[in-house]
Amino acid sequence: MGVKVLTISENILGANEDKARENQDRLDEHGILAVNIMSAPGAGKTSLILQTISKLKQKARIGVIEGDVASSIDANKVSEQGVATVQINTAGGCHLDASMIERALNNLPLGDIDLLLIENVGNLICPAEFALGEHKRVMLLSLPEGDDKPYKYPLMFTEADVVLINKIDLLPYLEFNLAAFRKAVTGLNPKAKILPVSCKTGEGLEDWFSWLVDAIGEGRQV
Amino acid sequence: MGVKVLTISENILGANEDKARENQDRLDEHGILAVNIMSAPGAGKTSLILQTISKLKQKARIGVIEGDVASSIDANKVSEQGVATVQINTAGGCHLDASMIERALNNLPLGDIDLLLIENVGNLICPAEFALGEHKRVMLLSLPEGDDKPYKYPLMFTEADVVLINKIDLLPYLEFNLAAFRKAVTGLNPKAKILPVSCKTGEGLEDWFSWLVDAIGEGRQV
Repeated sequence: MGVKVLTISENILGANEDKARENQDRLDEHGILAVNIMSAPGAGKTSLILQTISKLKQKARIGVIEGDVASSIDANKVSEQGVATVQINTAGGCHLDASMIERALNNLPLGDIDLLLIENVGNLICPAEFALGEHKRVMLLSLPEGDDKPYKYPLMFTEADVVLINKIDLLPYLEFNLAAFRKAVTGLNPKAKILPVSCKTGEGLEDWFSWLVDAIGEGRQV
Repeated sequence: MGVKVLTISENILGANEDKARENQDRLDEHGILAVNIMSAPGAGKTSLILQTISKLKQKARIGVIEGDVASSIDANKVSEQGVATVQINTAGGCHLDASMIERALNNLPLGDIDLLLIENVGNLICPAEFALGEHKRVMLLSLPEGDDKPYKYPLMFTEADVVLINKIDLLPYLEFNLAAFRKAVTGLNPKAKILPVSCKTGEGLEDWFSWLVDAIGEGRQV
């Protein structure tokens, strides 16, 4: 499947919240659950998306929007799995915004999608400030980033429905206090679900898939 | 030594380049070498600074500016080493800018500093766009972030004088192609010095210290 590449400069002054609501209405009309996946660079967003496609593509029709400053490396990997994929290049912008998502939606077969996975730009700061029209927000922390990140990047952790701790297979080789991390996240966001996973070994991913299938089900009941 | 915490909102429209030149003139008047250290969250900037203080504090009088969205965790760690430290909290801003550095310089004993280490906000995108008045730019890639990062965050790699590959002790546990990474960096920035290091085990850090001592020496000859 070919990859569409959109180069979109960020629209700082646009009415992002209004546009995000329009996007969500449009997604709801098509019965699509949209998930905004955020993390620092290299935490494993694309690996999570690839694992999710592999596991769930028989149960749900999946579409993917890939956000990057430059390149279409990730969209190419995803597209090879046979799902509808749009790459957004932000041309230096450090986050996706709702206008970018609108343009991506214009380039996706919305009638043929149940689950839309949106990979945000790798950045723990600004993506949390810009609603896209998503129904759920997922953030990945990569274990090597350290257990103090909720104190340094509080908004991202406050806004997440799910916090995945990825690369948990590296735990034996790192000093990472899981209890301290859980306490810090829960202090900011008592409702956040915290799931340790490894997109490399597959450890813990069943919990993620279950959460996602439940979220798709909830959307269908609305 | 007490830590000063400055909360500074980013100044998007300010004449950042002019302010950066003013900062550099001021640093030059005091014979201070300023190094802007940039990376994604959790790549090891603070660990690098702590190792550098430990090794070089007998050879050079060191000052540190810590940039974070929130918290003074890093400044507290650095200040315990007995060096002059200012924490900048950007209140949501995703990078330092020259005006923030000006205010930090106003709070540092410039007559007593030879080497000023500036830890930027953890972010691979925007920090590369904002000159601070620094003489050298250093970027850290953490090995677990993956070898494809130069393609996704090209500006950061293009602007760096030195690229440190940190957490090299994790190489046995990860799929990271060092040769491919070197090739990608060199393609963007043929002059960049690439140094694999581990701030945990100390591996490779002698090369970093040598580079830094040479850079201080160059500054003194000007």
